[in-house]
Amino acid sequence: MAAFPLLVAALLVLAGGTGAAEPAADPGRTAPVLALHTGAGGFTRPSWSPEEERRRRLAMAEALEVGWQSLRDGGSALDAVEVTIRALEDDPLFNAGRGATLNVEGRAQLDASIMDGWDQRAGAVAAVTRIRHPISAARAVMERTPHVLLVGPDADRWAAAHGLAMVNPLFFVTEDRLRPRIEALPEDPGDAPGTVGAVALDGRGHLAAGTSTGGQGGKLAGRVGDSPIVGAGTWADRDCAVSATGDGEYFIRFAIAHDVCSGATDRNEPPEAAAKRLLARLRDMDAFGGVILLEASGDFRAVFNTAAMPHALIQEDGPILTWLYEGDEPVEIAAPAE
Amino acid sequence: MAAFPLLVAALLVLAGGTGAAEPAADPGRTAPVLALHTGAGGFTRPSWSPEEERRRRLAMAEALEVGWQSLRDGGSALDAVEVTIRALEDDPLFNAGRGATLNVEGRAQLDASIMDGWDQRAGAVAAVTRIRHPISAARAVMERTPHVLLVGPDADRWAAAHGLAMVNPLFFVTEDRLRPRIEALPEDPGDAPGTVGAVALDGRGHLAAGTSTGGQGGKLAGRVGDSPIVGAGTWADRDCAVSATGDGEYFIRFAIAHDVCSGATDRNEPPEAAAKRLLARLRDMDAFGGVILLEASGDFRAVFNTAAMPHALIQEDGPILTWLYEGDEPVEIAAPAE
Repeated sequence: MAAFPLLVAALLVLAGGTGAAEPAADPGRTAPVLALHTGAGGFTRPSWSPEEERRRRLAMAEALEVGWQSLRDGGSALDAVEVTIRALEDDPLFNAGRGATLNVEGRAQLDASIMDGWDQRAGAVAAVTRIRHPISAARAVMERTPHVLLVGPDADRWAAAHGLAMVNPLFFVTEDRLRPRIEALPEDPGDAPGTVGAVALDGRGHLAAGTSTGGQGGKLAGRVGDSPIVGAGTWADRDCAVSATGDGEYFIRFAIAHDVCSGATDRNEPPEAAAKRLLARLRDMDAFGGVILLEASGDFRAVFNTAAMPHALIQEDGPILTWLYEGDEPVEIAAPAE
Repeated sequence: MAAFPLLVAALLVLAGGTGAAEPAADPGRTAPVLALHTGAGGFTRPSWSPEEERRRRLAMAEALEVGWQSLRDGGSALDAVEVTIRALEDDPLFNAGRGATLNVEGRAQLDASIMDGWDQRAGAVAAVTRIRHPISAARAVMERTPHVLLVGPDADRWAAAHGLAMVNPLFFVTEDRLRPRIEALPEDPGDAPGTVGAVALDGRGHLAAGTSTGGQGGKLAGRVGDSPIVGAGTWADRDCAVSATGDGEYFIRFAIAHDVCSGATDRNEPPEAAAKRLLARLRDMDAFGGVILLEASGDFRAVFNTAAMPHALIQEDGPILTWLYEGDEPVEIAAPAE
């Protein structure tokens, strides 16, 4: 089990700026951008202690640093999305990989997808139970099969046969997820805060997006939400990349990730405006959620209809910016040393 | 096993008309429309004998009659889509339900989805192996769970526990599908002609769409294509309903079903024009496929980039029209007696 190092001296500094990146020094080269979210909570503000808030900011910063290092080493947007999400999957704080929510039968069933905006290639796995890093399995499906989506025990078997890191299903189960399910009635649906996702823009101007989750706590066995569904939980094309989180069924029914991005070319509606419109519509139906979105211009936005959706951003020459709650000013974390 | 009766004296008559429906006599009431497809083949024209052509036209007409009877009895568009597809699933001629293609391991794994355009509710199952009518399981997921998509053995178990008709997995296997897979190399992908789908408009003006398939012949175990993916293989909203067929992975990556419908409101691009643009784009990538689409106005179109996509249409006071090949004039089949 690779432990990823804490690369920053994690200096928490309150900051009011937007952290907009300087234009890239190298003409014709795009200034990279990397951002992540760790899930939209419900409509009431979570009661995180200052220590819990700090823990979340640091976990986001650590994951961003892993992805940023990849981008700086010449990695693609796709690489950055994958390694950022792997770091989040390893952190039991989030509902993805280790620490995933448990379904009604007490098992973790994991979903993930990844999409390369340049050629709109995509890969995904759903309802898998033994793959340590579902996001890497999603990428492997994209790159090593003619398919986009593999599901269930067959997907686990395929991953095992293709050398992905496999674990005992109990690897994913943490005390924090176990207790509420033990105490819940079987039919009691749980919340699913903590889905993770990332969007990236690399030096060639290519976008990518990915999402990974354990899904809704207490979900039916075999239930698949929006995270592994291209067009619902994840989307990337040449102009726009989106990772979504929230009431997954609504994100599927309204094709949220695709609709956020397609507005720009289709109806002259900027992705941010489309996201606001769609999430307001979901709010009217009592459905919660949010998206992070990144445009080819480097423009980053987070839009959510909940009290909190932790997310973080790094741009060239900029610090790491982290947000937790609706209306927040960003909190800076010192950028990694050159 | 219910055998559905041949309701029409199936008079095959060559006809040149478009079969446009008369306006509904009852003001304020919508004239119902029901259409289906039975899959886009490849780029070369299939070598069906006249008897095989006739068999396909009759099978489509029989399925339409079942759905039309439901609409005439006051059933919803959703009901009509479900029963029409059930009839097609029972026919071993098509790649859905009985007669489905077999995956690389020689098993039939079935996918289906259904969507109600009025409230954009949807349900789907994927990679199931024991549910006789996947389209009915998709509807049951929509109506009896908080979820949209259940997959794999868990979905089979859920269906069994909720009273859906279950069969031995060998029920789906026909000689016609078995032989090519026995003779194929394991890595030899097969074609997947014969995915089925339906779109309907009912007397209240509600649209619905559904799609059911065995997927690509020789697919990897656990592979899920576009048919059960809302926004890819199936879409319905208040203006537009689509069922798609073809190279499923491309339909997922380009969110075809959603994009065909969203153009009308988003960019003033009629669904037919959007479908033509998208399928030409797929053709450039050597990806085959087609869609049937129905608008709330009752306007029906079939768009495909292949040499054949059998489809059929019935409207009030109209005959059943059937098409097989690209550029075909429709062949009329006598409408069922009042």
